[in-house]
Amino acid sequence: MRDAYCAIRDTGFVAMKKTLEELARLVQGKVEGDGGVIIEGVAKVEEAKKGEITLAVSEKFLCEAKRSQASAVIVSSGVRDFSKPTLRARNPRLAFAQILEVFYPQVRKFSGIHPTAIIGKDAKIGKKVTLGAYVVIGDAAKIEKGAYISSGVYIGNRVVIGQNSLLFPRVTVLDDTVIGGEVIIHSGTVIGSHGFGFVRKEDGSYYKIPQAGRVVIEDRVEIGANVTIDRATIGETSIGSGSKIDNLVHIAHNVALGKNVAIVALVGISGSSTLGDGVVMAGQAGVTEHVTIGNDSIVAAKSVVTKNIAPGSIVSGFPARPHHRQKRIKALIDRLPQLVQRLKKLEERVKDK
Amino acid sequence: MRDAYCAIRDTGFVAMKKTLEELARLVQGKVEGDGGVIIEGVAKVEEAKKGEITLAVSEKFLCEAKRSQASAVIVSSGVRDFSKPTLRARNPRLAFAQILEVFYPQVRKFSGIHPTAIIGKDAKIGKKVTLGAYVVIGDAAKIEKGAYISSGVYIGNRVVIGQNSLLFPRVTVLDDTVIGGEVIIHSGTVIGSHGFGFVRKEDGSYYKIPQAGRVVIEDRVEIGANVTIDRATIGETSIGSGSKIDNLVHIAHNVALGKNVAIVALVGISGSSTLGDGVVMAGQAGVTEHVTIGNDSIVAAKSVVTKNIAPGSIVSGFPARPHHRQKRIKALIDRLPQLVQRLKKLEERVKDK
Amino acid sequence: MRDAYCAIRDTGFVAMKKTLEELARLVQGKVEGDGGVIIEGVAKVEEAKKGEITLAVSEKFLCEAKRSQASAVIVSSGVRDFSKPTLRARNPRLAFAQILEVFYPQVRKFSGIHPTAIIGKDAKIGKKVTLGAYVVIGDAAKIEKGAYISSGVYIGNRVVIGQNSLLFPRVTVLDDTVIGGEVIIHSGTVIGSHGFGFVRKEDGSYYKIPQAGRVVIEDRVEIGANVTIDRATIGETSIGSGSKIDNLVHIAHNVALGKNVAIVALVGISGSSTLGDGVVMAGQAGVTEHVTIGNDSIVAAKSVVTKNIAPGSIVSGFPARPHHRQKRIKALIDRLPQLVQRLKKLEERVKDK
Repeated sequence: MRDAYCAIRDTGFVAMKKTLEELARLVQGKVEGDGGVIIEGVAKVEEAKKGEITLAVSEKFLCEAKRSQASAVIVSSGVRDFSKPTLRARNPRLAFAQILEVFYPQVRKFSGIHPTAIIGKDAKIGKKVTLGAYVVIGDAAKIEKGAYISSGVYIGNRVVIGQNSLLFPRVTVLDDTVIGGEVIIHSGTVIGSHGFGFVRKEDGSYYKIPQAGRVVIEDRVEIGANVTIDRATIGETSIGSGSKIDNLVHIAHNVALGKNVAIVALVGISGSSTLGDGVVMAGQAGVTEHVTIGNDSIVAAKSVVTKNIAPGSIVSGFPARPHHRQKRIKALIDRLPQLVQRLKKLEERVKDK
Repeated sequence: MRDAYCAIRDTGFVAMKKTLEELARLVQGKVEGDGGVIIEGVAKVEEAKKGEITLAVSEKFLCEAKRSQASAVIVSSGVRDFSKPTLRARNPRLAFAQILEVFYPQVRKFSGIHPTAIIGKDAKIGKKVTLGAYVVIGDAAKIEKGAYISSGVYIGNRVVIGQNSLLFPRVTVLDDTVIGGEVIIHSGTVIGSHGFGFVRKEDGSYYKIPQAGRVVIEDRVEIGANVTIDRATIGETSIGSGSKIDNLVHIAHNVALGKNVAIVALVGISGSSTLGDGVVMAGQAGVTEHVTIGNDSIVAAKSVVTKNIAPGSIVSGFPARPHHRQKRIKALIDRLPQLVQRLKKLEERVKDK
Repeated sequence: MRDAYCAIRDTGFVAMKKTLEELARLVQGKVEGDGGVIIEGVAKVEEAKKGEITLAVSEKFLCEAKRSQASAVIVSSGVRDFSKPTLRARNPRLAFAQILEVFYPQVRKFSGIHPTAIIGKDAKIGKKVTLGAYVVIGDAAKIEKGAYISSGVYIGNRVVIGQNSLLFPRVTVLDDTVIGGEVIIHSGTVIGSHGFGFVRKEDGSYYKIPQAGRVVIEDRVEIGANVTIDRATIGETSIGSGSKIDNLVHIAHNVALGKNVAIVALVGISGSSTLGDGVVMAGQAGVTEHVTIGNDSIVAAKSVVTKNIAPGSIVSGFPARPHHRQKRIKALIDRLPQLVQRLKKLEERVKDK
């Protein structure tokens, strides 16, 4: 048996030593203090030990970082007078991510095609493609160069998977879906299920509308675990390049997401709605049907967007309103008991007169 | 290798030509204008080209349809004076769905039993049943005539799958579940998981209540992707015939759904609740335990039903109230800032006197 | 073919006869009335037949139980003057669960290793371990004594599964996850997916933060169907012993759950939040990032916890407030139409003067 086939390993600690100076060069940051200090790992501030570097973005974490045993701290360029060697970066979170990658390189071992993988008629498998155990690839599917299809993934007919994309175990990609390059899809996710489209008949029963469209996912998209993205009724459900989708998100038929959209867990987006580039939707929020959310808008947690929203909006509540207005209303709701007291007092005074 | 086994294809465009007159006959509609115009496809109004038919249900879409290149338009019987050939139908959406089916026939190729399918002891596999790659069928299970069990589906012991039912790849149907005929279940869905039943002991720990019941799903039910339906503690969790369930819905133990119930994505229905025939629940709504929702009631998005609801109700909010009342309350909440202003003014006037 | 391998059967009715007296001894309860009555099954009060025992915890169910054909009734020790043989128990629900277990024993047949199971290099498989059909076990994984890994489960590299744990079909456990003993995980659940961690760059694109940590699940945890638990960015996402998680719950990176935590369906817990021992979260609730919920707190359905909460709190709403306060506010919201009427009347009276 060839065990390597059943293994997917995209992160793993690699023992190595780097000086702070070397790390700073890598992330285009500046060292203050001893640049020669040896860094052998990365840790959260509350767990950092000697030889490790940690991140301190806010005041609170700066104090903790000072008290910690960390050998160096990544800070923003504005921070001054720090007692430990520091790596100053314009975007300290980015520097942290890049340094984390040094110690946990995101490399996937090419493992070839497992003997139990089933490949459909006329399917094209590119060079350096990995197909794990019990993978099923449909007819006329195309898996491009360097793609990594983990164990138990199902890929339907005529599906395209772009270069170097990574599908974790047990992803389901149904017929005619097109997935770009450098895409990551986590386990349990279903792409291309039927949209929830029915016509109600006079007797109360539902007649199924054929779901004849497809799903198109552009480059560098990442999709979390147990997400569902429905195919279009006609045409396409589309996810723009660079968009990131968290776990357990529902995206209905004919939805169009722009580029670099971020959607947090348990969000539901109803049929034929459109999210512009750079939109952020926080957890458990929702969008009703046929709604357009303008570029770079932010939708707060648990909100429901029921109408079109202009670019650059920040909205919250149900129905979603401008966030500053929603905050004021929430504050007033919180003061309702006092408001009722004031009303009562007034009533008494007026009665007295 | 027999590739056909790993393919599931239930919709696909079929090139054909029909006159508008032929389509009208098919859907029992009436033609106005040139009934001989050739239709070769169906499209959304914004994308329709010459040779295609489109749907225009509202005023807005009627204007777009006029301007479009579509060769014909499906309209409701009330629409007059239209510049293009029209197909008038009492239920234009239904006519649209039926015509879509002409061009995208919902046919599944019978593919027989894949050599990698594992069939349990005493299981009965009917005629014209398809079992895809890596399907597992439990002992004493019964798969009836014409059922299509896609790749990677798991079916437990003593499960029954009715005639012509379609299970998409990676569905899990656990022991003792009974599924009727013409049922469709989408990928990733789990039927028959244990109900969330525990007794809290004095030391704070939970004692598991055995979940000894089952799930019964009647004919013509459709269940979306990554749904979970728990088995009953004792007795049955039941889904009535013709009901339609969207993606990522949670249905707890001992829930009973009537006929033609429609449940939109991310809804949660708690243990032992009952939904009458024809109930509609919109996205992200919830129902608490032991609640009964009367026939033909509508529950708005994100509402939580906490008490029994009479048949024919329309409710929204948390707790769910009659929708007209909830709308009025929402409007007043929206006006809270002005109400507080009015209160302040009154206070000043009263003080002045 | 060895059919037994594809079968998982953990509950099933076992025909047997017990006297009420025998059952009472088993659950340390007391019999009132005829202890010799023969019990052959357990039923819900509305379905109980002769020869069956039922549970009556509230007044309402007591009446129904009296009218039912049940041969005996489990009641709390406080109940008096009952017309049927009764089994009195300090915790009647617990007694009910224990008696249910007599008739539906939670036994799993050891079935050995199915020939289609793929076992990685250096993996250790303990005694009496069951591996179902098409199971994939990663390199250096360790499956301890008596664990039951159902068909189609994927287990990554270096994963540990503790003694007697039960994984239902199609569970995905990704690299480096550690799972304790007596754990139950339901179908479709994904453990160890990447946390939703990205740094936004100046051009609006997202840079992926390597997710280099792991998930640790302690003993006697039960996790529902289609749940997602993300691995930590660095360090651990941890689920304390005895905790119970319902279906479709999302647990983000670096979350820490204490012991005996209960989380109902469709809840989302954001990154780095901590839930103390004994916390209960009701359905569709949420927690924002970096929040701590004190021991034994209760979070009501659909609430969102946005700030730290003291031990023993009961909170509801968004943002979550003390429940008694939230109830009062909800009542006032409900009375808003009347409050506006009172305000209007006052305005008229003041104007008149």
